[in-house]
Amino acid sequence: MQISANNPNRKSWLHVDKNSDFPIQNIPFGVFLTRDDIITIGTRIGDTAIDLGALHQLGYFDDIPLTDDIFLQDSLNDFIADGRKTWRMVRNRIADIFDEENDTLKNNKKHKEIVLFRLDEIEMQLPVQIGDYTDFYSSIEHATNVGTMFRDPDNALLPNWLHIPVGYHGRSSSIIPSGIPVHRPQGQTIPADSDTPVFGPSKLVDFELEMAFITTDANDLGEPIPVNEAEEYIFGLVLFNDWSARDIQKWEYVPLGPFLAKNFASSISPWIVTLDALEPYRVEGPKPLKPQLPYLQYKGKKSFDINLEVALKPKTAKETVICKSNFKYMYWNMSQQLAHHTVNGCPVNSGDMMGSGTISGPTPDSYGSMLELTWKGSKPITLEDGSERKFINDYDTVIMRGFCEKEGTRIGFGEVSTQLLPVYNPKKNK
Amino acid sequence: MQISANNPNRKSWLHVDKNSDFPIQNIPFGVFLTRDDIITIGTRIGDTAIDLGALHQLGYFDDIPLTDDIFLQDSLNDFIADGRKTWRMVRNRIADIFDEENDTLKNNKKHKEIVLFRLDEIEMQLPVQIGDYTDFYSSIEHATNVGTMFRDPDNALLPNWLHIPVGYHGRSSSIIPSGIPVHRPQGQTIPADSDTPVFGPSKLVDFELEMAFITTDANDLGEPIPVNEAEEYIFGLVLFNDWSARDIQKWEYVPLGPFLAKNFASSISPWIVTLDALEPYRVEGPKPLKPQLPYLQYKGKKSFDINLEVALKPKTAKETVICKSNFKYMYWNMSQQLAHHTVNGCPVNSGDMMGSGTISGPTPDSYGSMLELTWKGSKPITLEDGSERKFINDYDTVIMRGFCEKEGTRIGFGEVSTQLLPVYNPKKNK
Repeated sequence: MQISANNPNRKSWLHVDKNSDFPIQNIPFGVFLTRDDIITIGTRIGDTAIDLGALHQLGYFDDIPLTDDIFLQDSLNDFIADGRKTWRMVRNRIADIFDEENDTLKNNKKHKEIVLFRLDEIEMQLPVQIGDYTDFYSSIEHATNVGTMFRDPDNALLPNWLHIPVGYHGRSSSIIPSGIPVHRPQGQTIPADSDTPVFGPSKLVDFELEMAFITTDANDLGEPIPVNEAEEYIFGLVLFNDWSARDIQKWEYVPLGPFLAKNFASSISPWIVTLDALEPYRVEGPKPLKPQLPYLQYKGKKSFDINLEVALKPKTAKETVICKSNFKYMYWNMSQQLAHHTVNGCPVNSGDMMGSGTISGPTPDSYGSMLELTWKGSKPITLEDGSERKFINDYDTVIMRGFCEKEGTRIGFGEVSTQLLPVYNPKKNK
Repeated sequence: MQISANNPNRKSWLHVDKNSDFPIQNIPFGVFLTRDDIITIGTRIGDTAIDLGALHQLGYFDDIPLTDDIFLQDSLNDFIADGRKTWRMVRNRIADIFDEENDTLKNNKKHKEIVLFRLDEIEMQLPVQIGDYTDFYSSIEHATNVGTMFRDPDNALLPNWLHIPVGYHGRSSSIIPSGIPVHRPQGQTIPADSDTPVFGPSKLVDFELEMAFITTDANDLGEPIPVNEAEEYIFGLVLFNDWSARDIQKWEYVPLGPFLAKNFASSISPWIVTLDALEPYRVEGPKPLKPQLPYLQYKGKKSFDINLEVALKPKTAKETVICKSNFKYMYWNMSQQLAHHTVNGCPVNSGDMMGSGTISGPTPDSYGSMLELTWKGSKPITLEDGSERKFINDYDTVIMRGFCEKEGTRIGFGEVSTQLLPVYNPKKNK
């Protein structure tokens, strides 16, 4: 089925700013609370949020096979489980409803009052109930930077890195949408020249610039997903800030990997941009530096050209952009990640989330974490207000943005914005 | 509130074999499909399964604050979220209903026909929808054995081990109930004296003898759980077989921990035995070998004396018991694990599961994995049919059992039994 929603010549009768991330060619999916405190699934065109639950009740999706309550839910999991054919029919239909040449809803004031919301009337929620969350480690620049800093510059990549899309399991329960603040975590760290840990607030709180993809039901226990079929099971992507406490990580991570250094919080942008919407932005991936096993060998363009940036905003000053990177730098693409994840028969379900790992580019201003940008704190960053940062300070807000652009059409992700608060105070915070 | 269900003098009007794991003092919780293909929450006394959904509809739980459909669900998550006071009221009430001195249900043939099932009439399901699953590494004997084999016998424990209940995130989607077979996983392994991996079936499939506890909603993002309050949030325990592929693990696990070596399957016993039922079996834990940070220091007895065994059954021969261990050997207890897991503010929800890590005891016949029992395959085990095992063969069944016993009362977990099948064949298995 054609993705007519991607037609670059289409315009909407809803107002869309020239630099909006959300033209009628985007049509992302999210979950929000309406002004009437009702939770619903919706989409967004320009700065207008659209209640898909209400649209469906009003009959705008008739003759598409959907259950009556598919959009009247607090997560997209069931809709995502309906599969690509359904996603595409719904997205194409939404494009038709809001096309400037379609007067049906445009001229129905009563329906518009029910269906359309200003952004300040809604409250975005987590778009999916995340069953399992996996984080990969797929940027060669990031893995090389970390290996250079902590191990050996001449052997920065570990022996398995060029053969395996290295990944590990993360914690779903602490994944939060943009806008929810995070407390600085406490934990064990090891002082220099000591073999006895101390307890206290992390002194090295960091962000990690990532993207994450969300899957549909993919396979049964035991059944691998072939690399060239993997995209069939990817619904869409979000921006992902994988908050990290570097000092906690250093002490705890041997031999089973990062744990409390990561699971205090990860933040995502609330609108899932579909893989269909990103179709025009496919690009070649990097050439493999070593031969890859057949189950990881793919055909075609599986990388995506998505511009990424990170801004840091102190409590009382304007933001400073501190990093510009791109999703296309990933050495291992999403199809390889999903093929690897399931090659042993591990089941992947609707609503599972897979992070890319920190997306660093080749130049120092494209590194995707403070650890790399300040080279372990040895080269502090100067912000526009004159203050310096080695890592993230209390009350700083970290903002990540991402968009694709080609031939005048821009498809974006909006932002994930998260403020770091001081350590949780049981008397004050409970 | 008193736990009257634990009264050791109580007897049931249902038949209970002398060596049953499920006397009226146990009253575990599980989920099963009935002979009419209805899914319900139930309990078990002797070899009789009891439909709690039907009991509730018939009014046997009146005056306990429960929603009408609390037991008519495919998971225990909502019931567990109701909290300890409710669990205790329900368990006490069940003990009353089935007490030999209570004739109400005993003499109501029609009700009994609705409520009671033989075990061969039901099919046990996963008892909870597992949100997040964490696996700890809390047996000092296991950590020492692994460190001795793979690193340095003189420094077998890593520097952090005596300070941190080391743990890592696992995969929820591949946790299955007893009885579901598992395919031998495929993956990358590294041949001896090579730096290039090969792809194929794991040659070193292993079990890990563990227990796992299931939590209720415990804390908000940011809020730690104090160690001495942790048990309030533990609903109960199951036996846990954390299947492992040692050769895949060896190649993949640096630096982010085990991934595909673990997430092809983990099996659990289907009846959750409540912490309340285990109350009489509390024992002192091991003395700390190094001082522990204040947030890990607990009061009272937080360990439990639970006898564990593993049997291996070849395809066409009788089983051989190959390991006898005990949950009390754990160096770090469940309260310490939960306090550690949340000290950074990581939220814990109803239905989350936390594995103990392999439970090895001090003697070679108490080691909780083939890796340790055969010392990396160097000392094969001889089974009763005369065959030898270094690791698990195709069509072998691994059976784990566990029970407490004191002053004539035995509270058990039944078993988790899982057969290993050959590698998944897409033509045959789909």
